[in-house]
Amino acid sequence: MTTDRYQKGIDKIQELTNSSDDNPTGFMDIGESFKDIAPDLEKYVVEYAFGDIYSRPGISNHQKVLATITALVAQGKPQIAMHVKTGLSVGLRPEEIVGNIMHLLPYVGFPSVLNALNAAKEVFKEEGVTVDTSAVE
Amino acid sequence: MTTDRYQKGIDKIQELTNSSDDNPTGFMDIGESFKDIAPDLEKYVVEYAFGDIYSRPGISNHQKVLATITALVAQGKPQIAMHVKTGLSVGLRPEEIVGNIMHLLPYVGFPSVLNALNAAKEVFKEEGVTVDTSAVE
Amino acid sequence: MTTDRYQKGIDKIQELTNSSDDNPTGFMDIGESFKDIAPDLEKYVVEYAFGDIYSRPGISNHQKVLATITALVAQGKPQIAMHVKTGLSVGLRPEEIVGNIMHLLPYVGFPSVLNALNAAKEVFKEEGVTVDTSAVE
Amino acid sequence: MTTDRYQKGIDKIQELTNSSDDNPTGFMDIGESFKDIAPDLEKYVVEYAFGDIYSRPGISNHQKVLATITALVAQGKPQIAMHVKTGLSVGLRPEEIVGNIMHLLPYVGFPSVLNALNAAKEVFKEEGVTVDTSAVE
Amino acid sequence: MTTDRYQKGIDKIQELTNSSDDNPTGFMDIGESFKDIAPDLEKYVVEYAFGDIYSRPGISNHQKVLATITALVAQGKPQIAMHVKTGLSVGLRPEEIVGNIMHLLPYVGFPSVLNALNAAKEVFKEEGVTVDTSAVE
Amino acid sequence: MTTDRYQKGIDKIQELTNSSDDNPTGFMDIGESFKDIAPDLEKYVVEYAFGDIYSRPGISNHQKVLATITALVAQGKPQIAMHVKTGLSVGLRPEEIVGNIMHLLPYVGFPSVLNALNAAKEVFKEEGVTVDTSAVE
Repeated sequence: MTTDRYQKGIDKIQELTNSSDDNPTGFMDIGESFKDIAPDLEKYVVEYAFGDIYSRPGISNHQKVLATITALVAQGKPQIAMHVKTGLSVGLRPEEIVGNIMHLLPYVGFPSVLNALNAAKEVFKEEGVTVDTSAVE
Repeated sequence: MTTDRYQKGIDKIQELTNSSDDNPTGFMDIGESFKDIAPDLEKYVVEYAFGDIYSRPGISNHQKVLATITALVAQGKPQIAMHVKTGLSVGLRPEEIVGNIMHLLPYVGFPSVLNALNAAKEVFKEEGVTVDTSAVE
Repeated sequence: MTTDRYQKGIDKIQELTNSSDDNPTGFMDIGESFKDIAPDLEKYVVEYAFGDIYSRPGISNHQKVLATITALVAQGKPQIAMHVKTGLSVGLRPEEIVGNIMHLLPYVGFPSVLNALNAAKEVFKEEGVTVDTSAVE
Repeated sequence: MTTDRYQKGIDKIQELTNSSDDNPTGFMDIGESFKDIAPDLEKYVVEYAFGDIYSRPGISNHQKVLATITALVAQGKPQIAMHVKTGLSVGLRPEEIVGNIMHLLPYVGFPSVLNALNAAKEVFKEEGVTVDTSAVE
Repeated sequence: MTTDRYQKGIDKIQELTNSSDDNPTGFMDIGESFKDIAPDLEKYVVEYAFGDIYSRPGISNHQKVLATITALVAQGKPQIAMHVKTGLSVGLRPEEIVGNIMHLLPYVGFPSVLNALNAAKEVFKEEGVTVDTSAVE
Repeated sequence: MTTDRYQKGIDKIQELTNSSDDNPTGFMDIGESFKDIAPDLEKYVVEYAFGDIYSRPGISNHQKVLATITALVAQGKPQIAMHVKTGLSVGLRPEEIVGNIMHLLPYVGFPSVLNALNAAKEVFKEEGVTVDTSAVE
């Protein structure tokens, strides 16, 4: 049975990933690979993370994705790449994503920033995105 | 001797804190209390953190402060309050600051978010700021 | 409007805190102090944390509270005390709570364990609980 | 020279890993690969971690392994898999291991839990263990 | 019953804290305040932390204390002050302690360094120690 | 345009890596792989991390590299290997590097130390370095 919150979450994911109706969750990992060990995980991802929190008013999708990337950089989590991809999908310019990661240098130090830039660089390459670096050369 | 980077950093701090020329660093802690043990710390704060990084083009002051707050929330650092104050100073609406912290729930968990909201609430009270919560009631 | 998940969460909190019907959330901080800045936080605490996750079958309340305490010790969060109190409330013996914290020594190191034991000791004192230490003297 | 604490540690490891007398430390990594650079490390692992701490009375082996897994999830350490294996070895049901990891969602967030479930899933597959998910579907 | 490792640990603590025979553990917190809840903790602190690890050959006491301070700064633990005191006690110059903390700026960021310098400054004040800052002014 | 701080940073890197004038930055990662997305990163690495901080007087290169390694171990960062290599380059004996990592056991726990020793062991192997373990056998 699909709840309203579940549908709201799916709609939000589709909006964030700019996905077709055939595959509304697109490239987003919503925990579907854990069906055999924790089938309810997907529900919490969709209903709570996307239906409740990502759907909360107050800040833009741009800001939501940047906040997510920042938290993952500060924690050193491997999910950075997927959220960089989401950032491009919601229309963040690559300069904004890089600028946000670079801004963290005085707070998280060089190693965390270098790791995050590696993840971003890889996504940009996969997506064929080039960064306009003229302003910081 | 004041370098260009130092002046650029001071200018950026004044812009961020909306401070008078008499006291350009305003409420920002730039490490001046460590003159007796590490007098060069202030130089790194002003020149590197503010002159280099905060002055980097690519993202807005609004986004820079939100990224800073997010990193501090994810790390559980006590400097959250000062940067919430900076957020208000650069013109972030309190709903945006709260919205950004609330967005971190699925990534950092409840305890870190509760601690950050406590810090924000305290600053809002000091600054006489009220939050429009009509959209999330 | 109270949802089923909200009621389920409140019931779980009452079960965990062993509270009266007059004050079912007892000593548990459910985020009610943030009504003026993030009134929806309470909903996420009650519905998601307690209605969904704490109500999930598979492990006992004893184990849920010990897992919570362990996560907070590993992260160095100040909420340890409240969850030690919950531990006593669900019937964990103080020796189990202390034993669980002591077990973390090889994984989180002495400083985190010492800080956690300080929090536990304080709660035991407030609650008039004594620890039977005969087995480890 | 084998001390009493060393033997006690080996006995505890054998109990935890359910290993034969021929290879009492079984699948447990006790630091033996560091003989050429830090030969005393094995002694600390066996004597202190297992002879002292894992042998401490007060909580069951079940709880000790769950506390270990929880601490590793909260810290994002790669040793999760080995301790999930230990969990199965001491008789924890896979539902308890998954249930314990899922319980951490409100405290450590989705990325840490997803990473831990990936590790657990891999171990379950290697060990031919299936999870009864009927209660959470 | 006092073991050899216990005596070795006490000797090391006395050496580190430069304490009298009447009070050999001096200002060092060895967990004696937890006698009522975890009386064996003191044993692990003295035997393992000091008798085994601090007594390990290979690096000097100076380096051991600096490594301890560094780990605590990187983790944001409140025990920094006690180990700064130990640093002075083993003969580290205050410039070395401050220099070591300042060196962490590119790795842990400003907030962690500022918090650590606050702790160090407080200890220097209590101990009547002044820092020669002429080389970095 | 090369600033004095940039040249000072390059000189420090050459000193640390013991590199030839043809390739003064040697094996050190100074962020040059990010030219296409954040070309200014290299400047901050060279000018700030090496020109300012590594060039700060007060502690020796030996201690600077050990402090760096310690911070990375405590944070679980993958850059440990490169800095172990730097340690050998500045003349630290492998016993000192291992001794420093082993000393962290009571503060960061076994998993972080095991991961760090793995990184060190790999570097020692690549560099053909053997550790004199006679004192700790």
